[in-house]
Amino acid sequence: MGSFDEATAVRRVDDGRYSVELDADYGFDQALNGGYLMAVLARAALDASGRPHPISTAANFLRVARPGPAEVRVESRKSGRTIDVARVSLVQDGTPLVDALITAGTLDGEAEPVFSADPGELPPLADCVTSDGPPGSGFAAQVDMRYDRATMGWLDGQPSGRPEMRSYFRLRQAYDPDAILLALAVDSLPPVVLNTGAHGWSPTVELTWHMRAVPAPGWLALHGSGRLVSDGWFDEEVEVWDSAGRLVAQSRQIARAGRNRG
Amino acid sequence: MGSFDEATAVRRVDDGRYSVELDADYGFDQALNGGYLMAVLARAALDASGRPHPISTAANFLRVARPGPAEVRVESRKSGRTIDVARVSLVQDGTPLVDALITAGTLDGEAEPVFSADPGELPPLADCVTSDGPPGSGFAAQVDMRYDRATMGWLDGQPSGRPEMRSYFRLRQAYDPDAILLALAVDSLPPVVLNTGAHGWSPTVELTWHMRAVPAPGWLALHGSGRLVSDGWFDEEVEVWDSAGRLVAQSRQIARAGRNRG
Repeated sequence: MGSFDEATAVRRVDDGRYSVELDADYGFDQALNGGYLMAVLARAALDASGRPHPISTAANFLRVARPGPAEVRVESRKSGRTIDVARVSLVQDGTPLVDALITAGTLDGEAEPVFSADPGELPPLADCVTSDGPPGSGFAAQVDMRYDRATMGWLDGQPSGRPEMRSYFRLRQAYDPDAILLALAVDSLPPVVLNTGAHGWSPTVELTWHMRAVPAPGWLALHGSGRLVSDGWFDEEVEVWDSAGRLVAQSRQIARAGRNRG
Repeated sequence: MGSFDEATAVRRVDDGRYSVELDADYGFDQALNGGYLMAVLARAALDASGRPHPISTAANFLRVARPGPAEVRVESRKSGRTIDVARVSLVQDGTPLVDALITAGTLDGEAEPVFSADPGELPPLADCVTSDGPPGSGFAAQVDMRYDRATMGWLDGQPSGRPEMRSYFRLRQAYDPDAILLALAVDSLPPVVLNTGAHGWSPTVELTWHMRAVPAPGWLALHGSGRLVSDGWFDEEVEVWDSAGRLVAQSRQIARAGRNRG
């Protein structure tokens, strides 16, 4: 089982071109995880910009990515005083799989918020539940997630009726949260629509996430929610709070609701 | 004073190339409004795709756009069964000003939501306030906004302390809400950080918005809020609700807080 660093490593082959070996350890049956792909894109964009933090990432998921060799292309569109902006694409066998717009910058690890919303409720870690059974292969074997029971009724055919999902999150390997792990975290929850009666795969069409602060070591807390499930589409917002109680990342995705409805 | 249709009109000059005359009527002192620019991008993307609705738009605002001639370039990245995805750029004098990823599709005007959040509170229209004085030139002369007094204390040096802004919205000209007007609406509120002590211009770095339903005729209600103001950055979420009580659009932007703090 490779390390997360190795699984997301990119190798510069030319100006704005990086090679990567996409790792089946971050996949499900159907596809590699979108957060994992965003982590790979972030590595390339940060290397190209020379800046440490992906302030903003907007990603369109065009086609399913498969494990194996791929290329990341980074096209600089602005190099400013405080930020760098690029168009970034993941390409496999000559076909674009993910298109992204990434803004890189530098966050101040010591910044004190002018205003912060409160984190939502999440029960103590000891009261949360793991997904059933020992970790299998793929994504579930990489991440250690401890779910708020209130959002897991769908597993027993009792969805809460609200698009929501909450969990603690860390890698099973020793890895302190950083910018790259945040990219994985924002797309790691089961789809919130499992709690409104949807079943099956919910392919993400677009996901935008913002890194808001440098995360502290320890567990991350993920708060997923949605505002509207309609016409086969749903939105999913995920907030990532660190162990120090800081909002460190926030995302919204728009996705297709699973087609086999209960 | 030109119509909104004319101000956002694009003329196809070649495959994936459109010319546009950017209209000073949708500008402020410093720049053309970002929502107006997104409306122009949407017109081009929808024309190129042949689909009516911009399901998802993620835009990076690279440089200030000036009134006058410009070009929109639309590069198709996926033409699927239900959606078309393109990279879309606004270019002026050979320089990219806005980069966007736009997913176009077709929403069902009759869809009944599986789940919908509640709209937030907004006082009756008659209890809301206009911005002071007669409409001047530029953006304020185009839009008719009626603000929730609770979010306008900043005008009198009494910001609420919470990043929030709420208003009714319509064009002053007769124009029923549609996909193009929603692009304008999501970026029309004063920055929510005016209520946390920020002053001056708050340039948007990235804004993603999703069209969620076909809007009914009448006023739109805009609910703006934010989760974190820190390190010179803030997020702003805007929900657009139509006169029938439907969530028709939702956005999030990340922006720089105005630099002269109170």
